[in-house]
Amino acid sequence: MHSGDTEHRSIWLEDDGWSVGIIDQTRLPQSFETIRLTTLDEAAAAISGMQVRGAPLIGVTAAYGLALALLRNPDDEALDAARRALLATRPTAVNLRWAVDRVTAITRPLPPTDRARAAYEEAERLAEADVEVNRRIGEAGLALLGDAASSRGEGRLEVLTHCNAGRLATVDLGTATAPLYLAHEEGMELHVWVSETRPRNQGAALTAWELGRAGIPHTVVVDGAGAHLMARGHVDLCIVGADRVAANGDVVNKIGTYAKALAARDNGVPFYVGAPLSTLDRALPEGGAIPIEERSPDEVTHIRGRTSGGSVVRVELTPPGTRASNPAFDLTPARLVTGLITEVGVVPASSAGVDSLPWSEPTGRPELP
Amino acid sequence: MHSGDTEHRSIWLEDDGWSVGIIDQTRLPQSFETIRLTTLDEAAAAISGMQVRGAPLIGVTAAYGLALALLRNPDDEALDAARRALLATRPTAVNLRWAVDRVTAITRPLPPTDRARAAYEEAERLAEADVEVNRRIGEAGLALLGDAASSRGEGRLEVLTHCNAGRLATVDLGTATAPLYLAHEEGMELHVWVSETRPRNQGAALTAWELGRAGIPHTVVVDGAGAHLMARGHVDLCIVGADRVAANGDVVNKIGTYAKALAARDNGVPFYVGAPLSTLDRALPEGGAIPIEERSPDEVTHIRGRTSGGSVVRVELTPPGTRASNPAFDLTPARLVTGLITEVGVVPASSAGVDSLPWSEPTGRPELP
Repeated sequence: MHSGDTEHRSIWLEDDGWSVGIIDQTRLPQSFETIRLTTLDEAAAAISGMQVRGAPLIGVTAAYGLALALLRNPDDEALDAARRALLATRPTAVNLRWAVDRVTAITRPLPPTDRARAAYEEAERLAEADVEVNRRIGEAGLALLGDAASSRGEGRLEVLTHCNAGRLATVDLGTATAPLYLAHEEGMELHVWVSETRPRNQGAALTAWELGRAGIPHTVVVDGAGAHLMARGHVDLCIVGADRVAANGDVVNKIGTYAKALAARDNGVPFYVGAPLSTLDRALPEGGAIPIEERSPDEVTHIRGRTSGGSVVRVELTPPGTRASNPAFDLTPARLVTGLITEVGVVPASSAGVDSLPWSEPTGRPELP
Repeated sequence: MHSGDTEHRSIWLEDDGWSVGIIDQTRLPQSFETIRLTTLDEAAAAISGMQVRGAPLIGVTAAYGLALALLRNPDDEALDAARRALLATRPTAVNLRWAVDRVTAITRPLPPTDRARAAYEEAERLAEADVEVNRRIGEAGLALLGDAASSRGEGRLEVLTHCNAGRLATVDLGTATAPLYLAHEEGMELHVWVSETRPRNQGAALTAWELGRAGIPHTVVVDGAGAHLMARGHVDLCIVGADRVAANGDVVNKIGTYAKALAARDNGVPFYVGAPLSTLDRALPEGGAIPIEERSPDEVTHIRGRTSGGSVVRVELTPPGTRASNPAFDLTPARLVTGLITEVGVVPASSAGVDSLPWSEPTGRPELP
């Protein structure tokens, strides 16, 4: 199993050359099912319903969604409507806007008859670029893991991650997980603490699933246990992903990330964020202004799992009628982040660090690898 | 619904005068079922299987367990065996040992024929004392809530709690919840953020259930969301319980408590621990030496809930064969705790604070209220 093989991708163009295949991530880990997206509405629903999730994968799916829309109707009004529909699916991740702006900027100046083809080409380019970006994040992170392993001395390296910033959150390799996949390929002994990541359990369901497929030793813990593991010296390093990084290095990521970063700081554990340049939002001076998506309370009060008989059911966890609140992301202040691992190297999570990175304008192609 | 009514108790002597009634807390919130304990083994199984849980309630249940054992066989060997069986049920809470030592100290000097009656009397006394202790914790905490409400100004008071240190964790009223029940009775406007408390969901299942019965407004959130709520200014005060408090004020409580305390500190939110004197373990200089119970990984990988059809099923959340770890408690260093709310008042979580409290020796009856 070699990372980067197209068989591991989480989104692909089907053999018909126009419909788009995805893994239905709401079905994992109970079953592996793929879906064929054929319309803008299906692409938008896949994003808002979290059949695809993870900031980079959302971006690529949205790019294909625009292509599907333009295939059906390439005129200006249709392009604008498609753009609006896609931007309305999820408010927090910035890659969504980045990808949509990029495809729009490329297609809008073209005659309508040429737009769909150009959109497909750009979506494909974004998908390929994502894999390459993640490989570079992996290489930059690999050096950090090597340093951590050296300073640990004997025994396997213990890494903690939260949510899923893995293969399934990107086209392939993942952001936070890319260093882990590369380290595992190189034969480094490592073990990953997987924080389950309530309410949707992307850790327990998705990260555990993909690490298991790759043969990387891992152990699932509840979200409340990460701080305890760090206090007991069981974690050498934390790596998480990001949905948006502000100009000062503040990181918005899955709910529960902030508490992990506090625990890392309190215990002297390095806390890294794997973030492609497309995750940077330089227009936002600091993270407090990033909109935090509030999702349905049903995601807190109910959960899906497999019965001993093998059927998959949704069960209620709380007393009937219980009120719940479901903020999907939180803000980890830059001061708690040891470094941002990007495709051009590791930089401090600070204004200076972010300023030192090359811009990744949606309209400028050259910065894609 | 008046707090302290015996109808709300979580343990009681049945009308036959010897068997012991409990609420089966593993069935909540899906169904309210009571169980009649008639033997030592049933009492020990109820504790280890968490049909009863919460440090104070574990203590009272163990006292009744000794009484049940002595009823059947009051000789020295049986007393020692019963004592060992009960102490082996759960390793972390100190009240268990406190209650067992107390009943042992009272019964051991008596002729065997008098032991069972004396054990029942002492168990009853511990149960009544628990209610009174919690009422006093409630009164001490009520003053803190009043101060917090004054400094907040307008709007309802926002309190966050973790796990269940409520009625169901004690004989009645709860430790962390006693101030909330008293405040609600006095007409104070308050709202409680209930942290669900994976893996056993004592917050989502038990605290939500009992606050709902009392008519106290509350909202369930995932464990990762507490820090975000504090950062956004939605929490005026945190109150949690404790399973054991060391001589320096370190607090061992349900897994996830430490992360909440870190978030409270980072956001200037007061973090209080409701702890009866019986929770203090002066023999332990600091919390690092307190044994942390490691429970079955099944509690992480599986969960019980109610289907839309109304049946209660257990479902698997992780990929089959996934390894999980399940530490049940964590250590919150004294430096993160604003104060210990005890039945004799609020003291700093420090050696000086703990030293200022009266001793609660298991063998000395006078210190019971």
